Amino acid sequence: MILIAERINGMFTNVKQAIADKDKKVIQELAKKQTDAGAAYLDVNVGTAAADQEGTMQWLVEAIQETCSTPLCLDSQKPDVIAAGLKVINAQNGVILNSTPLNKKSDEEIFDKYIEMANQAGPKASIIVLTMDKNGVPQDINNRVAIAAEIVSKAMEKGFDTQRLFIDTIVLPVKVPNAQAQPGSILSAMDQIQYLSDPAPHMTIGLSNLSQGASQRSLINRVFLAMAISRGLDSAIVDVLDQDLMNLVATAEMLMNKQIYSDSFLKAYQLTK
Amino acid sequence: MILIAERINGMFTNVKQAIADKDKKVIQELAKKQTDAGAAYLDVNVGTAAADQEGTMQWLVEAIQETCSTPLCLDSQKPDVIAAGLKVINAQNGVILNSTPLNKKSDEEIFDKYIEMANQAGPKASIIVLTMDKNGVPQDINNRVAIAAEIVSKAMEKGFDTQRLFIDTIVLPVKVPNAQAQPGSILSAMDQIQYLSDPAPHMTIGLSNLSQGASQRSLINRVFLAMAISRGLDSAIVDVLDQDLMNLVATAEMLMNKQIYSDSFLKAYQLTK
Repeated sequence: MILIAERINGMFTNVKQAIADKDKKVIQELAKKQTDAGAAYLDVNVGTAAADQEGTMQWLVEAIQETCSTPLCLDSQKPDVIAAGLKVINAQNGVILNSTPLNKKSDEEIFDKYIEMANQAGPKASIIVLTMDKNGVPQDINNRVAIAAEIVSKAMEKGFDTQRLFIDTIVLPVKVPNAQAQPGSILSAMDQIQYLSDPAPHMTIGLSNLSQGASQRSLINRVFLAMAISRGLDSAIVDVLDQDLMNLVATAEMLMNKQIYSDSFLKAYQLTK
Repeated sequence: MILIAERINGMFTNVKQAIADKDKKVIQELAKKQTDAGAAYLDVNVGTAAADQEGTMQWLVEAIQETCSTPLCLDSQKPDVIAAGLKVINAQNGVILNSTPLNKKSDEEIFDKYIEMANQAGPKASIIVLTMDKNGVPQDINNRVAIAAEIVSKAMEKGFDTQRLFIDTIVLPVKVPNAQAQPGSILSAMDQIQYLSDPAPHMTIGLSNLSQGASQRSLINRVFLAMAISRGLDSAIVDVLDQDLMNLVATAEMLMNKQIYSDSFLKAYQLTK
């Protein structure tokens, strides 16, 4: 399971404040704590507060790299902000560009642009591609599978290794009334997406979005994550500091035969991270 | 989710002692506690200690029925013990005969016998049928699906409603080294079994067996149960007194759109039980 740690995000109050104060320490501590907890990548999102998004992305990347070498996942809806981060990043150990839709209303070739950026960043650079297109996020889950198929085939055309793709099937908050029927369908979509190519693209989700505004957030996240891991989900953007969630991941991987059972399987899993 | 409560079982020390002492109170308290916790059925298993298994089954059934009217799930590998229980049972609200394989080494028509017993017990009597035959439990999961198909077709031939069948795909302990690969395959089997007939047979498992002898029992049980519910598992023999497990069931049902989300969905679920 490729876990992308979600906490370095300007949406969290302490990160927002640290950005405003140019206080590196808060960021660096989060980077270290999340790395120790088992993050394969650290998501880096400037949030919406900072006026200079590109400069802030660079400041965050540089602050993190001063203290640890965990690969980063540059997270922005604006390609320029990701490009700014790429200018100062050390991508030797990999980097993820998070994220792009297949295409945009304007028909701008946005996915092509991300492939170019990833290729420039090096052979270990990957892209998170959302199963949405110029019409937005399809309510009909079959259309998300169709978009995923287009993403995979476009990547193949461009000679971009499908193993450098992370297909994000997008989970909406369960609290949103007309999204209630979606989690079950998204699981079925995952069943199909894992067979779109061989080797398969990675699949990922921004897990915490599922429980946005809900009660029992960690429980909701964990239950869905267990279901999704059993469908081949092999990556997620999560709160790696949630120990219950990390134990769930270890247990799910053991049950799916990706980790051997031993009486200390929870500890064993953490040691492999 | 049809939850069958597992605690009235002579394998547990306190139940074994209560049977030896003919101490009804222990049994009756377990019956009430499990009913309050949300059990749809109470499993009743005399265990192996009692010399007179048939008499003990009757004593247990009578003790429970003195105190509550929750339907029972008579649990024995010996049809005579189940038959003894049926003699004294009030099956108006239903009863489950737990369990029979498809057939036995001796080629004895054991499943037919259970259908007869269930029919005699009334229209609400169901049967748990194990996906095993005269050769035992198939290691190859495809063979379990094949046995399930035979079970369903045999029931149909006999005019026995498939909704009165609970197909048990059998989970072995993860601690058993050569069973490690099984949980994932069992989930795939469930994907198929739910489409064997319309309406589908119920699917059930003896969940706690999965974590027999393992560390982190509740966690292992919960993670697998979440995965299985997402595959259509609609019944399980579980420890309903495990509150974490009950919360997981509520969350899984909500995520699979069988329960509406509300901020108090955990409480709401308990109230429907």
